Amino acid sequence: MTTIETTRRTPRFADAQIEMAHGAGGTASRRLVEGLIGPYFSNPALQAFSDAAVLSIEGTRLATTADGFVVKPLRFPGGSIGELAVNGTLNDLAVSAAKPVALMATLILEAGLATSTLESEIEAMAIAARKAGIPIVGGDTKVVEHGMADGMYVSTFGIGVSDPRAMLDPASIRPGDRVLLSGPIGAHGITILLARGELDFQADLVSDTRCVWPFVEALLSQCGPGLRWMRDPTRGGVATALNELVRGGEYGIALSEEHVPMHDAVRGACELLGLDPLHIANEGQFLAVVAPSYADAALAAVRSVEGGERAVFIGDVRAEPKRRVIGINGYGGTRVIDMLVGDPLPRIC
Amino acid sequence: MTTIETTRRTPRFADAQIEMAHGAGGTASRRLVEGLIGPYFSNPALQAFSDAAVLSIEGTRLATTADGFVVKPLRFPGGSIGELAVNGTLNDLAVSAAKPVALMATLILEAGLATSTLESEIEAMAIAARKAGIPIVGGDTKVVEHGMADGMYVSTFGIGVSDPRAMLDPASIRPGDRVLLSGPIGAHGITILLARGELDFQADLVSDTRCVWPFVEALLSQCGPGLRWMRDPTRGGVATALNELVRGGEYGIALSEEHVPMHDAVRGACELLGLDPLHIANEGQFLAVVAPSYADAALAAVRSVEGGERAVFIGDVRAEPKRRVIGINGYGGTRVIDMLVGDPLPRIC
Repeated sequence: MTTIETTRRTPRFADAQIEMAHGAGGTASRRLVEGLIGPYFSNPALQAFSDAAVLSIEGTRLATTADGFVVKPLRFPGGSIGELAVNGTLNDLAVSAAKPVALMATLILEAGLATSTLESEIEAMAIAARKAGIPIVGGDTKVVEHGMADGMYVSTFGIGVSDPRAMLDPASIRPGDRVLLSGPIGAHGITILLARGELDFQADLVSDTRCVWPFVEALLSQCGPGLRWMRDPTRGGVATALNELVRGGEYGIALSEEHVPMHDAVRGACELLGLDPLHIANEGQFLAVVAPSYADAALAAVRSVEGGERAVFIGDVRAEPKRRVIGINGYGGTRVIDMLVGDPLPRIC
Repeated sequence: MTTIETTRRTPRFADAQIEMAHGAGGTASRRLVEGLIGPYFSNPALQAFSDAAVLSIEGTRLATTADGFVVKPLRFPGGSIGELAVNGTLNDLAVSAAKPVALMATLILEAGLATSTLESEIEAMAIAARKAGIPIVGGDTKVVEHGMADGMYVSTFGIGVSDPRAMLDPASIRPGDRVLLSGPIGAHGITILLARGELDFQADLVSDTRCVWPFVEALLSQCGPGLRWMRDPTRGGVATALNELVRGGEYGIALSEEHVPMHDAVRGACELLGLDPLHIANEGQFLAVVAPSYADAALAAVRSVEGGERAVFIGDVRAEPKRRVIGINGYGGTRVIDMLVGDPLPRIC
């Protein structure tokens, strides 16, 4: 564990060139964003480093989010780059407690891309957007020479209206708060890994990619005032999301590892590959920190929505050790759970 | 001239794969957007096919725009990809008569990119944003393997508030309206071409990239009710922007070609290369259609802002021939000015 995870000090970015790990969402990404990009773009909205920026425009609190998608392969069991781009962006708004209003999308296409491939992704975006009831109101298309991209990349932009029923603020988190997880972890990352066909085993697994707004809406309706913080644990997984939370606070989180749900295939693949499932990306799950008095209502709210049946509390907020995520196993043993270091699974979103 | 330019009929997209021309901003781009993407994303905001989408959120009229940047080389005389990304996005908002409020940026980086190159572009973005007084409130960073991009690509998203002093609407355009151009054309496209070093001549030329909001603000202040339409003539140049305008209307535009300002170096390069300067991209110019009663005020407004001294009326709206842009030379001869076909200058923005 380095000072990056345990203090608020801004790390310097001293790497001479960009490596894959700088895009993986873990410590290297954080060093790039905080050490190189952040100082240039310094402003209050960016300092929050959350998944969406909140702007107050003429009295309306808007959330905006920008996401890039470079997932490889473009299509995988359970989803594709277009569907992921739409749902990933909707999810960033949702976990900011903002009701999505509109999306935009920019495509960077490689010359030679089959029109049928492009059309499949346009259709996937349209279906995902229609399912969520959110219009795609514009965008841009650029083409680069063959060999200057990998089929297609998608950048999306989402805008939403902050829901007044919740005032998410990590500073409001207190020891005793509960950590809710919406469902089984790791399905997306392991599905992508298997879809590349580089491993010698197969599994009956599909990505968990979906829009989490229906769950968030249920939470806002049933226990809005009890919601302290939400996050979708994508790149870097649950471990990274929770570490990013605690590093800014005067508290820690204790995870009951045996309660973290995951498919057997995810568990098996992680054991085989030496990966920690808590570091594997998810695309249809979210974490919420909930005040204890709202805990039962929160769990019931998520479980009441189709697909939320496996929601569960996986841990709680503790006064000590501060700024650490601790895992507790079934026998009471503990370990420190760090942010993702390096990039075991490049281009998973 | 095909039916694409002269009727409102939606063209089919029948090409089997994506080619460079589909990103060039001309007829091929339009076929891709209208023939393939548009039908899937059909909604009123998108149907407008303008540079920015206007959303009404809780009573506030917001403009949002998304742009991708893949310019090659990353740095060129007068600008760079980072600066271009910021100003290009601000300009899309400006020509929609929307005061920019915030920007977001997504970076797609190629592994192996020198940190110094990235930092230069981050700094260029920050400087351009600061100069315009607009914060960059968030974004995303992805990294792809070496060989899967060309250094870096940037996608930007801008959000602005529609200025109530103008109600831009092509349907309000009438014969007799004047076409204003903010300054010399073609400097960006030709600068990029020369910066690639593939041609055997050099010229003392820099890109015109800049933020046009100060000019638009002067127009809004001096003659807001007289503004009918604005556009920044980027990919595809002045010819494409004006053709996109007239194709949806019951009027045509007559351009006085001798009045279109351009640097000698642009004129010379175009003659040498067989390019039409009206097809060359600009990154710091805009076109405005102005009611005749506001014409003098509009010209004075733009010229009063530093850098607007060469603004000029280059043509007017005529009842016939409908849906055509006609060029009139110094001797009274005429020619049809078409949209850009093909892609003579790939990756100019």
